[in-house]
Amino acid sequence: MTAEKLRADFIITGASQLVTCAENIGEGVLGVISNGALAALGDDIVWVGPESELRRHVQPAPGLVEVDADGGAVLPGFIDAHTHLVFAGDRSDDFAKRVSGEPYETKGIMTTVEATRGATDAELELFARQRLDRFLSFGVTTLEAKSGYGLTLDQELRLLKIAQRLDHPVEVVRTFLGAHVVPPEYAGAHDEYVRLVEHGMIPALENLAEFCDVWCEDGAFTRDECRTILRAARAQGLGIKVHAEQLAHTGGASLAAEFAAVSADHLEHATEDDADALAGSRTVAVLLPGATLVTGAQPAPARMLKERGVRVALSTDFNPGTSYSENLPLALTLGCLLLKMTIEEGVLGITRNAAAAISRERVLGSLAPGKRNDAVVVHAPHYAELAYHYGVSPVRTVVARSRIAFDLSKAGTSSAGAQNAQSGRQ
Amino acid sequence: MTAEKLRADFIITGASQLVTCAENIGEGVLGVISNGALAALGDDIVWVGPESELRRHVQPAPGLVEVDADGGAVLPGFIDAHTHLVFAGDRSDDFAKRVSGEPYETKGIMTTVEATRGATDAELELFARQRLDRFLSFGVTTLEAKSGYGLTLDQELRLLKIAQRLDHPVEVVRTFLGAHVVPPEYAGAHDEYVRLVEHGMIPALENLAEFCDVWCEDGAFTRDECRTILRAARAQGLGIKVHAEQLAHTGGASLAAEFAAVSADHLEHATEDDADALAGSRTVAVLLPGATLVTGAQPAPARMLKERGVRVALSTDFNPGTSYSENLPLALTLGCLLLKMTIEEGVLGITRNAAAAISRERVLGSLAPGKRNDAVVVHAPHYAELAYHYGVSPVRTVVARSRIAFDLSKAGTSSAGAQNAQSGRQ
Repeated sequence: MTAEKLRADFIITGASQLVTCAENIGEGVLGVISNGALAALGDDIVWVGPESELRRHVQPAPGLVEVDADGGAVLPGFIDAHTHLVFAGDRSDDFAKRVSGEPYETKGIMTTVEATRGATDAELELFARQRLDRFLSFGVTTLEAKSGYGLTLDQELRLLKIAQRLDHPVEVVRTFLGAHVVPPEYAGAHDEYVRLVEHGMIPALENLAEFCDVWCEDGAFTRDECRTILRAARAQGLGIKVHAEQLAHTGGASLAAEFAAVSADHLEHATEDDADALAGSRTVAVLLPGATLVTGAQPAPARMLKERGVRVALSTDFNPGTSYSENLPLALTLGCLLLKMTIEEGVLGITRNAAAAISRERVLGSLAPGKRNDAVVVHAPHYAELAYHYGVSPVRTVVARSRIAFDLSKAGTSSAGAQNAQSGRQ
Repeated sequence: MTAEKLRADFIITGASQLVTCAENIGEGVLGVISNGALAALGDDIVWVGPESELRRHVQPAPGLVEVDADGGAVLPGFIDAHTHLVFAGDRSDDFAKRVSGEPYETKGIMTTVEATRGATDAELELFARQRLDRFLSFGVTTLEAKSGYGLTLDQELRLLKIAQRLDHPVEVVRTFLGAHVVPPEYAGAHDEYVRLVEHGMIPALENLAEFCDVWCEDGAFTRDECRTILRAARAQGLGIKVHAEQLAHTGGASLAAEFAAVSADHLEHATEDDADALAGSRTVAVLLPGATLVTGAQPAPARMLKERGVRVALSTDFNPGTSYSENLPLALTLGCLLLKMTIEEGVLGITRNAAAAISRERVLGSLAPGKRNDAVVVHAPHYAELAYHYGVSPVRTVVARSRIAFDLSKAGTSSAGAQNAQSGRQ
């Protein structure tokens, strides 16, 4: 007796390893299936397993698309759980100043706010779409994008609307960050700005944002101000995120735990008590080693957080001030080198744990039946290439919802482009 | 009366800035010409200046090729003055171990030596060519490539011959590094290996290498052993390079000065006296911040070296153990962030000063009449993008000897590839 076969209109074959990042599938913490294959129907995965068993379990549906990984590893589409995607203006001056020893301060953000307010919708859309193209070329299929460079009711709504209509293969998950910094119009009137966020902005968000984030920091918002804002956000049904313990310990992490936030981000100055609180609230720690590199700040205590049971995600922190890079695999490398995470922890940090940090673990971040078919084919036969071959994109093909959204092997009149498609086979 | 016009069969127009990196041309330490243009005949540049003056000075020759920089900045082709290009094998295990706290030691090199000895010529050629393709995509038009993973007479010659016949748009400058480490066959017989290098290998090099490098380090070669080898190299007419003061202070820098070496490389543990000696011998310091990032070693004292008059170049140190990356612009970023170099110093470090580190300053490393027409067009209007937009290749077009060797704008069926060509215009 033969079990009924699954229908599939999309398969990935030829993989050296299918790195499922799923629990209870495959080998090791990353759930690796050697010579694994994947089958999908519509947007969703229906089967993963050894390629030798593919034909026994799966039958082709009309219009079948087959992606040949050609000996490369296949991973879930990468997820960047913390970006400031929509802005205008350049802060390379800040970069130059930092090299000469100036510390990072919150006030630099206003440079970007001014440039963003002054940009047209079309400009902001173009810049955001170009950035998404670059993210995609590094294997990112989902990213979280915060507002926070508008800081008026109209401007914050505008940034979220722009993020909403980008219509790009990379899915954009929107977060309201009206409480990024207090704009100069409210200098000496913090309370008034907090009230604007609480009573003016949050009630106006409707479906424009899924999460509310706050920057709990000296120079940004106090813990009490953040609590006021987060209460309003929770009442509105928004998920909670907190920029916590970045420049000093100001209580953001325990606040995140108090609100059962989906994520607490940065955490450079988090304590063991903070870690225990975050572990207790199932809040994901989103660590940002690129910002550590750029600002020279102390690294987040990744090992301590892991040891105390906190799940850790890694993100670019893409923003013009402290981390201007769409290279999420480089954040993985930096997580290993600067935060002493293992390569496996790093891979989970841009897949399953990053999905958890945006409440998408049920559908994203792993390759398993029922998950969305977002996948990345890399040049090299082993996932370690992602961390080890640093600063060089390992990505050959990106699949988003069963569609080929990026394909380097087809990108080439240049000899380099064509050759790149075969690189890393050693 | 009109001066006779220069004939040109290649021009670059549409640049926001021509960053000549030449002395006595343009503005600032980088010799920037705003809205500058470039004209070449054959392989060489014949004119640079404001585009508004191009037609007054230059007349087109038959078959004129025009590259439109489309508002991007144009720089000299990048030069990587320190790579270990030709090898086989993967050392991602070393990377993983280092994350868990194991220090870097010289012995890891033998893993690569074994894999390299066991690889066919065709494999080594393929790997090297794929790496050159990646270097090219990051704007590199010339790189230095060391032997040193053979460590027998035949194997060292084989690696240099492979480097010689790569026939790639990226020019490969060959360095003999037989004195990389002492292979295990000579354990307890260092002297014998040194004699082999001195009397067996160096005399057999003929035109296979232009430079001789030695690793002066505990665990590699002593200062006296290095001196013996460098004397033989000098007698053979080779230029001198020294891996100096990397893991500890062992006298390599002053030895480099003694031999008037073209470069002393690494220098993490160099002293002020070393700097004075190197400045006196006009030896270029080649600093390798990628290896600093990967190994967690102390950063080289770039500021001290600069202040004492040493010219500083930046390189990837491309190798499988401590810096597996062809991303030279990322080395520039890391030079700024880890070594506290200014962006301008960093740009000179991968152009003019890198040319000096391979005795090519007369023909390479700047955009000026008489220099070879190797040029890079980047997406962004300002050269600062190279450092600031970290980990993301800013390169759109690479010109090598007046030929378009890489052109991202033509590399695209994917939306991402095509869009990338316009990115960074903000």
